[in-house]
Amino acid sequence: MIAVRFHKGTMELADLPQPPPGPGEALVRVLVAGICNTDLELFKGYMNFSGTPGHEFVGVVERAPDAPHLEGRRVTADINAAPGHGDHRHASGRRVLGILGWDGAFAQYILAPVDNLHAVPDTLSDEAAVFAEPLAAALEVGQQVHIRATDRLAVLGDGKLGLLIAMALRHLCPGLVLSGKHPDKLAIASAQGVRTTLASDIAGPFDIVVEATGRTQGLEAALDLVRPEGTVVLKSTTEAKTPVNLARVVVQEITLVGSRCGDTALALDHLARGLVEPSGLVEAVYPLERFREAFESAARPGARKVLVRVSR
Amino acid sequence: MIAVRFHKGTMELADLPQPPPGPGEALVRVLVAGICNTDLELFKGYMNFSGTPGHEFVGVVERAPDAPHLEGRRVTADINAAPGHGDHRHASGRRVLGILGWDGAFAQYILAPVDNLHAVPDTLSDEAAVFAEPLAAALEVGQQVHIRATDRLAVLGDGKLGLLIAMALRHLCPGLVLSGKHPDKLAIASAQGVRTTLASDIAGPFDIVVEATGRTQGLEAALDLVRPEGTVVLKSTTEAKTPVNLARVVVQEITLVGSRCGDTALALDHLARGLVEPSGLVEAVYPLERFREAFESAARPGARKVLVRVSR
Repeated sequence: MIAVRFHKGTMELADLPQPPPGPGEALVRVLVAGICNTDLELFKGYMNFSGTPGHEFVGVVERAPDAPHLEGRRVTADINAAPGHGDHRHASGRRVLGILGWDGAFAQYILAPVDNLHAVPDTLSDEAAVFAEPLAAALEVGQQVHIRATDRLAVLGDGKLGLLIAMALRHLCPGLVLSGKHPDKLAIASAQGVRTTLASDIAGPFDIVVEATGRTQGLEAALDLVRPEGTVVLKSTTEAKTPVNLARVVVQEITLVGSRCGDTALALDHLARGLVEPSGLVEAVYPLERFREAFESAARPGARKVLVRVSR
Repeated sequence: MIAVRFHKGTMELADLPQPPPGPGEALVRVLVAGICNTDLELFKGYMNFSGTPGHEFVGVVERAPDAPHLEGRRVTADINAAPGHGDHRHASGRRVLGILGWDGAFAQYILAPVDNLHAVPDTLSDEAAVFAEPLAAALEVGQQVHIRATDRLAVLGDGKLGLLIAMALRHLCPGLVLSGKHPDKLAIASAQGVRTTLASDIAGPFDIVVEATGRTQGLEAALDLVRPEGTVVLKSTTEAKTPVNLARVVVQEITLVGSRCGDTALALDHLARGLVEPSGLVEAVYPLERFREAFESAARPGARKVLVRVSR
């Protein structure tokens, strides 16, 4: 099978043997996979990554010896897998699809524990269902922090994740404001009823600020906007350490909440019910054979979500 | 009156006029004041401080034209004062005793809004009551974070604040552990039933880690010890920006909570009921005239609380 391989700043399309499913595993034929900023970071060396990236996908179960009822079903997956039970998202020794110890979805086939799989509702297109993973990460903010309708809430960053966060949390907090630098990107969210503002015009204070700029300077901007005793949610993962004015955090008694992966089932439910409509987020769709082009397109500043069509 | 003055890295004992109380203010004769690490930072330039420091004190109301029933009462004070009502601890435009826009307690007299004053129970000695402010800051951790008896909780740092935090939170969480580098300091807390460990021996994971080392490296140590989805409470105020591995905070979904001043009435209640017995924390008591010596003593690494006896 064809698979993308990253290794020390290089990428290639390799022809690898199709992996056989082990106990409790399913072989999944990938339909569509999405390129995430984390993939760009992995290519640049984040996590010392070497292998097949890709953690946003929708596919079809080809073989599942221990769960034959799943065969032929369209699925996506929780990307954290640990032996045994417990919280897979944070278990020590866990594997993370396309990120850590588990070959990812920029390939014709992947393996996945059947416990990680979620059936995709028939009404959802592949191109919408592939947003389940990033939308789950967006929704995670509301799982960690109690968001009320009357909160003054700002989302910083009009990248893919910032747009999804604003579109997802808007149902909890209709007055939230999304701040960004790109009128065309902001327009994607405002078409779904999100208030938007240019970053140069935003004025606080806010009770809650979600930092999704993907930049190390984002936290400082968030601290400028949050009220004393307010909450800043951190969604950006950057490799470098960030200089932080901790005295300000202490004196103003600010709470910083790190936020990452979320609940896939909740995300699929939101997509199936039309609460978040992601089609405006798609920049382009490339076939797997043109992955390098797809990746370059995704790496362009301001790019929206680039999808890779692997099979039909 | 005699008052300590800090200005650009110098200190002097100045003879200043006794300040007249304005509307709603009391003139308080200082009995005892305590030297806090923040005072050491102010001397070094934190907040561009210039003026009379000192925010931990107990005194006697000498004159209070608008509240004559307070005259002769022994008091301490909330150190944040703002015009009008609301949360004085974080109000914009607030003054902070001995820190910002309000001359402090290393002086024979201070002014304080009568609304800020708390009567000190007769049973408390001056040397115990002067701990109301730092103990309130210690107790603030339990006001911000829900601490349960079964939590795995670590307090890092056996300085004055770390000791007070461990002694204060021990009632909520009997199994908490205080970590430090000084067996003699740890012994102060263990004498009050606190489990202690040398920092070199501490092993996580913990649900909650309170960082009270006063060092910029303290946060990294706390992140090493906290479990995924756990909470780190930040009590150290240092002027410099601290490089923080925010990706770790995000990936492990850790919550960081800045924590500062607390509830003076709760602290006085704890002291009056003997829940926290601070006498073991006192390093030495100096008269105001020997403030320079007192300050040098407080600045020595590992020094406990140095008190200044201003009057009787």
